Amino acid sequence: MGLCPAQLISRYMALIVQKFGGTSVGDAERIGAVADHVARTREAGNEVVVVVSAMGKFTDGLIRLADEVSPTRPPRELDMLLTAGERISMALVSMALGARGVEAASFTGSQAGIITNTDHTRAKILAMHPDRIREALDAGFVPVVAGFQGVSTEKDITTLGRGGSDVTAVALAAALHADVCEIYTDVTGVFSADPRVVSRARRLAKVSFDEMMEIAATGGRVLMLRSVEFARRHGVPLHVRSSFTWEPGTWIVEEDPTMEEAVVSAITDDKSEAKVTVGGVPDRPGIAAKLFRRLADRGVNVDMIVQNTGANGLTDISFTVAKTDLVAASETCNIVKDEIGAAEVTTDDNIGRVSIVGAGMKSSPGVTALMFETLYENGINIEMISTSSIRISCVLRADKVGDAVRALHTAFGLDADEF
Amino acid sequence: MGLCPAQLISRYMALIVQKFGGTSVGDAERIGAVADHVARTREAGNEVVVVVSAMGKFTDGLIRLADEVSPTRPPRELDMLLTAGERISMALVSMALGARGVEAASFTGSQAGIITNTDHTRAKILAMHPDRIREALDAGFVPVVAGFQGVSTEKDITTLGRGGSDVTAVALAAALHADVCEIYTDVTGVFSADPRVVSRARRLAKVSFDEMMEIAATGGRVLMLRSVEFARRHGVPLHVRSSFTWEPGTWIVEEDPTMEEAVVSAITDDKSEAKVTVGGVPDRPGIAAKLFRRLADRGVNVDMIVQNTGANGLTDISFTVAKTDLVAASETCNIVKDEIGAAEVTTDDNIGRVSIVGAGMKSSPGVTALMFETLYENGINIEMISTSSIRISCVLRADKVGDAVRALHTAFGLDADEF
Repeated sequence: MGLCPAQLISRYMALIVQKFGGTSVGDAERIGAVADHVARTREAGNEVVVVVSAMGKFTDGLIRLADEVSPTRPPRELDMLLTAGERISMALVSMALGARGVEAASFTGSQAGIITNTDHTRAKILAMHPDRIREALDAGFVPVVAGFQGVSTEKDITTLGRGGSDVTAVALAAALHADVCEIYTDVTGVFSADPRVVSRARRLAKVSFDEMMEIAATGGRVLMLRSVEFARRHGVPLHVRSSFTWEPGTWIVEEDPTMEEAVVSAITDDKSEAKVTVGGVPDRPGIAAKLFRRLADRGVNVDMIVQNTGANGLTDISFTVAKTDLVAASETCNIVKDEIGAAEVTTDDNIGRVSIVGAGMKSSPGVTALMFETLYENGINIEMISTSSIRISCVLRADKVGDAVRALHTAFGLDADEF
Repeated sequence: MGLCPAQLISRYMALIVQKFGGTSVGDAERIGAVADHVARTREAGNEVVVVVSAMGKFTDGLIRLADEVSPTRPPRELDMLLTAGERISMALVSMALGARGVEAASFTGSQAGIITNTDHTRAKILAMHPDRIREALDAGFVPVVAGFQGVSTEKDITTLGRGGSDVTAVALAAALHADVCEIYTDVTGVFSADPRVVSRARRLAKVSFDEMMEIAATGGRVLMLRSVEFARRHGVPLHVRSSFTWEPGTWIVEEDPTMEEAVVSAITDDKSEAKVTVGGVPDRPGIAAKLFRRLADRGVNVDMIVQNTGANGLTDISFTVAKTDLVAASETCNIVKDEIGAAEVTTDDNIGRVSIVGAGMKSSPGVTALMFETLYENGINIEMISTSSIRISCVLRADKVGDAVRALHTAFGLDADEF
């Protein structure tokens, strides 16, 4: 791609999907601001499809009600309940557009042709049939689509799970061949580090899909991995920006081979995981397979895995899991322990992970060395290491994470000039 | 029908549609009580279909939000917005049933096969295809259906207007050939007069469809005329009862020719209308036709009409309309005035109407006389009179309505023995 999408879009009438999160439609005033922005985008000559989440804390209130009437949260009914939230915000946004002279029509996930499997509360999209959205666009309307929801192959209402509204937006953008999918949120874009940790963090103007996937997977909180994956697979340019400032944010696009790549784009951190170590395991084939099959059967999502073999023919297998999965992981390992002849199972929920991400890393020797040196110079011990071609992650003590992120941010030249 | 439906239903497994209004599902505790009652009905060996309204004042809150974002309340979007209310209550009721070991599944109006015309905010049902409801029943589930909503022939979400949840319940009962449609509300049934006006009013155990239609049309607030009409047309027995006491309420059934009929069943009152008089109109054919055509074109619903011709060849036409239609009616009459050669248009919004309703009236001479005598003896002047075969209505000064209802309730022997 020779031109930045922003340049492309300014040249001709574009089809833009604009997704607004819960804080962006949190009250009548914010809904009015969203409608103003959509109206401006239309006045500039673009076609717009709007995707909305439920208003602010509305969904939390529904979940509280559900807990009051039932201890079990039956998934089909929970989905029916929660989809009320987007129904309200999409109708209100459509009304607010109408009040500004912009013809708008709201569509549920089902009406928008978002077909999912039957896995309630975390359904996966199987097919997109946005015929009614296309028709509405052709008739000059702004379609306002409920995020987060679809209809299953059994014709039941489903929800797409965490980050589901972003997935709706990206899937619609892909199916409609939109020029860009704009994700409006309460931050101004993707940063070189968490600004709450690094005061000199700066907004990235552009990152590649691969980088964004690594950022999302290692602690970036702006976009969920799932929607970035979906966008990459379908080649949908994403633009993450703020619905409070409306200024341009971060573009997430195909890697551009003609441009110089930053060696390191971002430092991410994540304290949501815990470590499990299965120690003193005989170093035989099939041991790891047995252990991780059992964890998978229990529904435990394993993230980093490190295995070291010692001189005595025994090996330690360490892995990280979400803290919420720690009990299940620990139980499973203790059950499997005897079968695989392990000596002990230990857990540690006082860890943190720091990662450096950059598409230019693969062609720049010395990045790994600089990372380790920087941590060493700051007196920070590395407990686990895992790498991909464009990312290096280190597990540290949790209380060292802030220092590590700040030191690496400076070492890799990411600090903003002013702050 | 030789047997009272209550007797019939106790003998064999019945299919019962139970409709719960907004106060009946007003909070988690009330929803639990509803679920208990549905569970008991099932344990007694019946099949149950539940129809729910939105929780208490939830819909009012949505309308306030709509008014904040838009001055115009676009009807399609208003319907999308308001249907969120039933979605919440039906999911919660289904969950509460599940928590009591009763398998339940919620269905939107669309999923329940309620097909309407495209007249948003007051759609009419065109067809019922409750295949999924029947399947759910056959699978042993309690279907919990959203009241008040349907899907249009254009596949848009519609609402059925005032009293729409009752209409949903009755239409489902008709389509499923249910044995009875139970309407649960915050009163214990249909009364011989408004208990707030007549302290000795008593609950009627049984009224005929014809009586109930007259009661609904002349001020009875428990059921809307529309759902009674629907029930009568499809022969669906209705049972109006309280979700606070759960005691048996009032049955509304086909008139039973084998039973003695009460001469007068109920005294109703209504202060929601105003009177318009078009005075000094030449007594020529076509004058009334022209006037009421123009009112109809303006969307004004006319209720009572009285015309008297004087000796001078001039006539006065008086009619009543809802107070909310008074401005439109008055404007229309003033526009038509010159065309029809009328002398003047006057309006009066300080009137009330008192009606006596009874299926036995048609075979009992003297009812009219007793009504007029009673009003006269109480010093109450009659301004307009209109009759049907089982109803007599009189328009009075508004401040005389309470006295009139109490006097007639006593005169026709309706007072309860104790109070």
